[in-house]
Amino acid sequence: MRAAIFRDGDLVVDTMPEPKPAEGQVVVKTLACGICGSDLHAFHHAPKMVDAAKRSGSSFVMDLKRDIVFGHEFCAEIVDHGPGTQKTLKVGTRVCSVPMTVTVAGEKGNVHPLGYSNELPGGFAEQMVLNEMLLLEVPNGLSAEHAALTEPMAVGWHAVQKARLTREDVPLVIGCGPVGLAVIAALKIAGVGPIIAADFSPARRKLAETMGADIVVDPAEHSPYKTWTEQATPEGYDPTSLLSILGMGPKMRPAVVFECVGVPGIIQQMLEGAPRDTRIVVVGVCMEQDRFEPFFAITKELNLQFVFGYTPEEYALTLHHIADGQIEVSSLVTGKVGVEGVKQAFTDLANPEAHAKILVEPWR
Amino acid sequence: MRAAIFRDGDLVVDTMPEPKPAEGQVVVKTLACGICGSDLHAFHHAPKMVDAAKRSGSSFVMDLKRDIVFGHEFCAEIVDHGPGTQKTLKVGTRVCSVPMTVTVAGEKGNVHPLGYSNELPGGFAEQMVLNEMLLLEVPNGLSAEHAALTEPMAVGWHAVQKARLTREDVPLVIGCGPVGLAVIAALKIAGVGPIIAADFSPARRKLAETMGADIVVDPAEHSPYKTWTEQATPEGYDPTSLLSILGMGPKMRPAVVFECVGVPGIIQQMLEGAPRDTRIVVVGVCMEQDRFEPFFAITKELNLQFVFGYTPEEYALTLHHIADGQIEVSSLVTGKVGVEGVKQAFTDLANPEAHAKILVEPWR
Ligand SMILES: [Zn+2]
Ligand SMILES: [Zn+2]
Repeated sequence: MRAAIFRDGDLVVDTMPEPKPAEGQVVVKTLACGICGSDLHAFHHAPKMVDAAKRSGSSFVMDLKRDIVFGHEFCAEIVDHGPGTQKTLKVGTRVCSVPMTVTVAGEKGNVHPLGYSNELPGGFAEQMVLNEMLLLEVPNGLSAEHAALTEPMAVGWHAVQKARLTREDVPLVIGCGPVGLAVIAALKIAGVGPIIAADFSPARRKLAETMGADIVVDPAEHSPYKTWTEQATPEGYDPTSLLSILGMGPKMRPAVVFECVGVPGIIQQMLEGAPRDTRIVVVGVCMEQDRFEPFFAITKELNLQFVFGYTPEEYALTLHHIADGQIEVSSLVTGKVGVEGVKQAFTDLANPEAHAKILVEPWR
Repeated sequence: MRAAIFRDGDLVVDTMPEPKPAEGQVVVKTLACGICGSDLHAFHHAPKMVDAAKRSGSSFVMDLKRDIVFGHEFCAEIVDHGPGTQKTLKVGTRVCSVPMTVTVAGEKGNVHPLGYSNELPGGFAEQMVLNEMLLLEVPNGLSAEHAALTEPMAVGWHAVQKARLTREDVPLVIGCGPVGLAVIAALKIAGVGPIIAADFSPARRKLAETMGADIVVDPAEHSPYKTWTEQATPEGYDPTSLLSILGMGPKMRPAVVFECVGVPGIIQQMLEGAPRDTRIVVVGVCMEQDRFEPFFAITKELNLQFVFGYTPEEYALTLHHIADGQIEVSSLVTGKVGVEGVKQAFTDLANPEAHAKILVEPWR
């Protein structure tokens, strides 16, 4: 089968053996698979990523001397059932799955992170193997390209679940790439607001509005934290009044700020900008060393919740949110390519005015 | 009156005018006042502290060209009532108060942080002015020197309140200076355990046991995180078993780790050592720039709760915990000095084998 392969630090198109299903696994044809920011990072900084994974004690460490097929945001179609499967879902059924395949040996399991595994191909290949037990049937009528957005949207849903939201919260989303847009969509469903979103890119701000942001801010023109303060300050609020000093006056609404940028320096910016008692949810994945001044976080009693991934339940719920139209993903897809187009797409994605999500269709 | 005064970067003994009580204030005689790590930091790094306070938008910025009398951990005795006071507590009553005095002008208040104020003296002076409304009578029989420990013990109590404890938690306290010891005492009252505490100093480890630690660790000999893992791992736990992969096997007990050291690098050490889903409560006050790798916190979904101070209610409850004998503070007091002894005490406190808390008794 054909695949876009990460080999010797480059992305090449080549053929490779079709994956064989083990006990409890099915073979699927990849219908559509999104390119993720993590894929771009792995392409540009693979050795750093491997180093960080090793030092953080992760059991998922890529061997860069061997081939890897990226792609963890997929929708696929069953083409064959392996040994020991129930076959509840027939050949031809469209399915999604969390991007990990477990291979069983006795009572032990071996987890392969699809998209970053040396053993099993990810979604930038024509075929993958998935665990039958983890398959979710794509609800009737939902297109493969929209179903493929389940994975990145689940990241936002998970972040919002970890935010310990209350009805009083005024949320602020910093960065409106796919991660920030997924957070906005989840906040909209959670029913909190006004949702304030900030991004330097006009195209991204427009997408933020489409996904449900109530107020969008260009940080080059206006401080997102000032906008937050305008929205969260109750009438008659005065921190120097005796009532406020005694803790009895009107109070600011609580702040929950989502970090969806993932570059060094952004967390310190938040520690400086965030109001007292803010919960900062770090969804952006920064793989570099970073600097910060704890003093800012201490005196304001800030909380930082770092988040990663999602649970299988959150993933399943997100698929249904998309199918129900509660998350309107169509505007996010800004391009589609075959395996030959993957490398160029990695370059094109650097321009936020042109692209949000590019899907790979390996069958093209 | 006599006071140990922070003047031109040095600590000098001099006389100064007695403070005059404004509306609603009382004059008190300082009976005992603890020397805090923050005082030592202010003595050695005052310009840095002022800079950090300015940049963090704090309304409390010391003017280092003017005198400051340190001391915010005090017990005192009423000597005079100012205008507009109720006089419910008579002259001679022993009192504690949160270390801030509010001066009222119409409906506005001006908050003076006692111990770091240019306007009002802290507890290293013979007299202070306090708000009558904030006074707490020291319960009968509790000595002034033990009541003076209310403030540092309240810091630990507050940290534990912010930790969102559950009965399942296994707490780990890193650093057993006065802050760590206060955390241990609060954890003991909260009834969670086993309480694991780590410090390089044998004397500090002994104090940790006195305050309620169940297991003490010398980090030079044994990793505190390994000790934690031994205590928190249920029988039959195996992360590679199929049951665990499916999220159905026995689970580790949750980790809550208290950072009570407050030096650069310690937070990154915790990000590396802490198990998945740990809540890290940062109680140590690091005023330097620090480095960290967000990736460690991200993949383990760590939570960092920075904490500072306490509420007046927490302070009052702590005074009663000490008076009830629920917090046994007597072993913490390792020295007492008059105002002439303050500067030497600042030096002596550098040796954790010799000292935990030195009290200043300005009337000596
Ligand atoms: Zn992704
Ligand atoms: Zn203190």
